[in-house]
Amino acid sequence: MYDVLIVGLGAAGYTAAIYAARYKLKTFIVGFEDGGMGLTAAEVGNWPGDIDIKGPDLMERFKKHAMSFEEVTHKIGRVEKIAKKGDHFAITLQSGDVVEGKTVIFATGSKKRHLGVKGEAEFSGKGVTYCATCDAFFYKNKDVAVIGGGDSAVEGAAIAAQVARKVYLVHRRKEFRAEPYWVDRVKARDNVIFVLENQVQEIFGEGKVKGLKLAKPFEGNDTLTLDGVFIEIGSDPSVDLSNQLGCVTDEKGFVTVKPTQETSVPGVFAAGDNTNASNYFAQFTTAAGEGAVAANGVFNYLSTVKVEGGYMG
Amino acid sequence: MYDVLIVGLGAAGYTAAIYAARYKLKTFIVGFEDGGMGLTAAEVGNWPGDIDIKGPDLMERFKKHAMSFEEVTHKIGRVEKIAKKGDHFAITLQSGDVVEGKTVIFATGSKKRHLGVKGEAEFSGKGVTYCATCDAFFYKNKDVAVIGGGDSAVEGAAIAAQVARKVYLVHRRKEFRAEPYWVDRVKARDNVIFVLENQVQEIFGEGKVKGLKLAKPFEGNDTLTLDGVFIEIGSDPSVDLSNQLGCVTDEKGFVTVKPTQETSVPGVFAAGDNTNASNYFAQFTTAAGEGAVAANGVFNYLSTVKVEGGYMG
Repeated sequence: MYDVLIVGLGAAGYTAAIYAARYKLKTFIVGFEDGGMGLTAAEVGNWPGDIDIKGPDLMERFKKHAMSFEEVTHKIGRVEKIAKKGDHFAITLQSGDVVEGKTVIFATGSKKRHLGVKGEAEFSGKGVTYCATCDAFFYKNKDVAVIGGGDSAVEGAAIAAQVARKVYLVHRRKEFRAEPYWVDRVKARDNVIFVLENQVQEIFGEGKVKGLKLAKPFEGNDTLTLDGVFIEIGSDPSVDLSNQLGCVTDEKGFVTVKPTQETSVPGVFAAGDNTNASNYFAQFTTAAGEGAVAANGVFNYLSTVKVEGGYMG
Repeated sequence: MYDVLIVGLGAAGYTAAIYAARYKLKTFIVGFEDGGMGLTAAEVGNWPGDIDIKGPDLMERFKKHAMSFEEVTHKIGRVEKIAKKGDHFAITLQSGDVVEGKTVIFATGSKKRHLGVKGEAEFSGKGVTYCATCDAFFYKNKDVAVIGGGDSAVEGAAIAAQVARKVYLVHRRKEFRAEPYWVDRVKARDNVIFVLENQVQEIFGEGKVKGLKLAKPFEGNDTLTLDGVFIEIGSDPSVDLSNQLGCVTDEKGFVTVKPTQETSVPGVFAAGDNTNASNYFAQFTTAAGEGAVAANGVFNYLSTVKVEGGYMG
């Protein structure tokens, strides 16, 4: 029986594991994607103290840190089911293994949104991908499009522009939500072509992507000829597992957490991009902060002596 | 005129500066103690990705990161006054310099609590200090006492025990609030003497500390003969400046913040140990997370186009 089961191998999960271990809690951490959304950041730039680091490298450091504690058991695997079992919780992995714990932290993050247009599913993995920064390097001297206007779209376009021949940045608005840092970066590249106030209507190809059809003509033509399409239109919180326990979500679909990161279900906590904490601001820093608070919440929950509020050093 | 004035040179302030700079905001960051409470952590251990780092070194990395952006102006100095001036804010430094900005982030952290016993003020700096981990190394082969039961007290005792001859750990309760990690560390040292369920009544000396008087006898004697007394009984939020602007505080004295880290005063944000966010859990991780959210809040506040809720990549 573990003290805490942490589901998710991203910044929130690993930070929760580090804190839980320092509280001497017997900790099981599991997930199917080692590194979580952190894997998608080609250049991080805003993890304080590391001016320049790649997302996967940062996540590797988080993982090593968590695994440096003997209290932490780490497993890569998909959690299929979670259920309350008496006064504790049991998770069932895809492998059939069942693991039990006194408390749970859902650090399940978010999953990339789909456009929902014709051809998207057909060409998924055949030129259509959901992580520009992960996949751009496979498109050397090719023509690609990035769809979206947030940080990951604009960062993706900037990264892709370093290798691709042409990068179309297709965005339904005129303004970007992305950090101006990234907007300036793409504006400085002469191989990024802005297709603004326009939308993708269809992705077409033959075995693999050949291009996309726009909702209205761009420079007299409503199709773009392409080798790759990177869809970066945001993410939705991953709440399938926390829903199985009945954790309440808000109107946007995020797990509602208390200041302790506890969910509506006693003993069940959540941290990271799947929660409504940190003003929904999905960053390494906020995930880490929430992970720390969640582990502290678990420690207090399991302690007979509750810790009083206020900073006590 | 700066876009944002950040008061405080700790983890929250520097993280806010990094994020503000990436938003291309003209940023002024100022404080009188470069590194903030981070300076007091001899061994951090829970900053994810750095298994072993000293607090001052981590804060130096935060600072270098913030100062790598041309958008950031950095100044060491005490802010004496802050006032609303038309639609913006003006801070007056001890030097007399006045600096103006459109928004403010208070990252002023917290200050160490005093015992309030006889002799404490008299011998302050003469054997009485408020940071065991900072000062322990001056007490090689001496006898010292650490007062308190939280993380900084128990960590302080563990660090002091590496150099001092004897370390008395005086705590008013029987149980520690500290991370078990640290409690185990002190228990493993045979030169740490636990003085539990007892309190300091007086600190005495002659020019410098010679000992302390306990509320009740310990091993038949109500005095301890000492060369140093480290008082580590927690901290109180530093809210003098935010009070000048009328920022609402909660019943515990912490600045009340919204999910955006905005205070009750429009355009004024707060992040770190001085706020009621992150369940009052004062950590590098939580300070960094709050600093990021505050800078994002400032960016949205200054943008004509408000960013919609939800993670949009």
